[in-house]
Amino acid sequence: MSKKIKVAQYGLGPIGIESLKLAASKSWIEIVGGIDIDPNKVGKDLGEITKIENLKGRLVYRSLDELIAGNKPDVVFHTTVSKFKAAYDQLEPLARHGISVVSTCEELLYPQLLNADLAARLDKIARDNHSRIIGTGVNPGFVMDVLPVCMTGVSRDVREIHVQRVVNASTRREPLQRKIGSGWTPEEFRQRFKEGKAGHAGLKESLALIAHCMNWKYTDLTEVGDAMVADADIKTQFLEVKKGQCCGLHQRAEAKVNGKVALTLDLKMYLDAKNPHDAIQIEGEPPLDVVVNGGVAGDHATVAALINTAGRIQKAPAGLLLMTDLPVPVWR
Amino acid sequence: MSKKIKVAQYGLGPIGIESLKLAASKSWIEIVGGIDIDPNKVGKDLGEITKIENLKGRLVYRSLDELIAGNKPDVVFHTTVSKFKAAYDQLEPLARHGISVVSTCEELLYPQLLNADLAARLDKIARDNHSRIIGTGVNPGFVMDVLPVCMTGVSRDVREIHVQRVVNASTRREPLQRKIGSGWTPEEFRQRFKEGKAGHAGLKESLALIAHCMNWKYTDLTEVGDAMVADADIKTQFLEVKKGQCCGLHQRAEAKVNGKVALTLDLKMYLDAKNPHDAIQIEGEPPLDVVVNGGVAGDHATVAALINTAGRIQKAPAGLLLMTDLPVPVWR
Ligand SMILES: NC(=O)c1ccc[n+]([C@@H]2O[C@H](COP(=O)([O-])OP(=O)(O)OC[C@H]3O[C@@H](n4cnc5c(N)ncnc54)[C@H](OP(=O)(O)O)[C@@H]3O)[C@@H](O)[C@H]2O)c1
Ligand SMILES: NC(=O)c1ccc[n+]([C@@H]2O[C@H](COP(=O)([O-])OP(=O)(O)OC[C@H]3O[C@@H](n4cnc5c(N)ncnc54)[C@H](OP(=O)(O)O)[C@@H]3O)[C@@H](O)[C@H]2O)c1
Repeated sequence: MSKKIKVAQYGLGPIGIESLKLAASKSWIEIVGGIDIDPNKVGKDLGEITKIENLKGRLVYRSLDELIAGNKPDVVFHTTVSKFKAAYDQLEPLARHGISVVSTCEELLYPQLLNADLAARLDKIARDNHSRIIGTGVNPGFVMDVLPVCMTGVSRDVREIHVQRVVNASTRREPLQRKIGSGWTPEEFRQRFKEGKAGHAGLKESLALIAHCMNWKYTDLTEVGDAMVADADIKTQFLEVKKGQCCGLHQRAEAKVNGKVALTLDLKMYLDAKNPHDAIQIEGEPPLDVVVNGGVAGDHATVAALINTAGRIQKAPAGLLLMTDLPVPVWR
Repeated sequence: MSKKIKVAQYGLGPIGIESLKLAASKSWIEIVGGIDIDPNKVGKDLGEITKIENLKGRLVYRSLDELIAGNKPDVVFHTTVSKFKAAYDQLEPLARHGISVVSTCEELLYPQLLNADLAARLDKIARDNHSRIIGTGVNPGFVMDVLPVCMTGVSRDVREIHVQRVVNASTRREPLQRKIGSGWTPEEFRQRFKEGKAGHAGLKESLALIAHCMNWKYTDLTEVGDAMVADADIKTQFLEVKKGQCCGLHQRAEAKVNGKVALTLDLKMYLDAKNPHDAIQIEGEPPLDVVVNGGVAGDHATVAALINTAGRIQKAPAGLLLMTDLPVPVWR
């Protein structure tokens, strides 16, 4: 085994803590510390936060500079925010220090979509300083983008790609159960979705990544979202929803290629969803029809995607990378 | 679009001809000629063999030297034989000339399994001469190896991997319909399988590639094969099989990890097979259950895998490569 990769955890919400726990079990990773702005977390011991013995003595710092003063990481697991623009000020200093970043920031899956200039700037800084920066996860990051792209590796021709995902949100972490609008009125959901304050982040980015890989110039990219309405009272580990209230979302992104709707990504994420699954249909030659029964479990798998990607990123060329630039995903 | 890749076709059997036809439709490929030992093919015009107008004037040569004297390719599509040892003398000169090779040679998927020394030798020659050499296809090359590996990219833990493939051989090319033993007695099939003269090539290599990616040291690798017996008379485009005769094969490779059977690859390939499909079960965290309904159609998709891989290989480092070393498969 080659020498350990030094890792710091940036953001100590549920995903960050899960990622620390999994990382602590890997013999090729050495955790050097954490970063978070939450005053309740700063100064805390990662061993206490995670209840993992061998993380004792590693602390949560207020800033990158304070972390680096002690022990500079090779790679940072970044799990703070969903918007690339909001993440940018956290990412740039990492790139400048030559630290690589594996992030769950949804827009970072394909940051060129909404912020091409910022993406180009970050790419240049990363290249100049031997840093690699990548956005990954399960969705976005795998089931609705990387996996469909991978399937086309055996395609002679691809004309259309359609992906559906149904997630039972009852099995997911609290921030997600809230983010999908549980307990709101359907009208509230629609209003907040319109304002960009509710909904699943990254669906458009998944679509844009597929289009990029297919070398498709698309038009008429649209994204719509509506509430899923509870047809009975629902109680989860974290919250309660009454019949008639919003219990999740139905979100859909689509785009046209050569004037025809050729890319659709359809996501239902709601409490007590029946028959969760992921499905991919590729119209082309040969036609391909793939189903992941039960679906790829979100939170557990997101953390895995983060860590497995860290295992491959250090051999990649420097820069702002896409998941499809890296070798075939693999457990590590 | 960057400059075209110059391609030559090595081996003009059904797969080679199909690959030429598909390659001729790609704007990024320029076909410069073919190579085959069959005296009936040498000297022929690729335009006539394929009935494709824009291949007219490109000839089939008897040897690499004769081809190179006219126009040296960047990449060769190699579709001649299944055994790495038999392919070696064709591959080494290509590597020495710095020509990259994308091959359907089944054992080349993981040539380290049976011929580690030869593989190391070829790797060195390829590195020294800036050639990239890779084995690919649909099976081996994708459904029973690369795709299961790709799924583990979202795994926290992987304990076992099981893959099943059922192929309806009635839809496949003639050499394949014969190779699976159609028309033999079941006893003949068993005898020939034992002698290594019948059966699907590459199943052990698929298993070994998965194990390599999982970093698993396996033991007790076994491969068994039996005849599928026709329960009624069967007639295909190419041949006839009587009830009671062999109409295909059921082949299975498995291996133990830490004393437990953790890897199984089960392949049924027979005429008039019902419900063809590919299925992958990954036992681990999360558990993953993937089905490709209808399966990935073999011959069409094999040729696609060849050409799509050629689209990615030139940016890879030189050497003898594995499919899992390259970026995520993608249609090109
Ligand atoms: N791609 C995927 O598949 C995938 C899957 C799951 C989650 N995600 C995304 O991953 C992110 C993390 O998820 P989560 O559930 O753990 O979210 P969360 O509960 O919001 O946790 C984020 C943590 O980061 C901290 N933070 C925010 N801004 C920061 C900054 N500028 N500097 C340092 N720390 C900062 C937060 O502190 P405060 O509490 O003080 O704000 C909080 O502790 C979210 O954006 C989520 O949407 C992506
Ligand atoms: N990985 C996969 O998924 C996959 C899928 C399909 C096929 N394959 C493999 O791909 C290969 C090609 O398939 P196919 O059906 O086209 O086979 P085929 O009918 O045996 O054709 C092979 C061609 O190559 C020629 N050849 C053999 N040795 C040669 C040499 N030393 N130099 C030059 N030419 C030579 C043969 O000539 P002669 O006729 O004179 O021998 C024949 O024209 C087979 O090994 C097959 O098993 C792999």
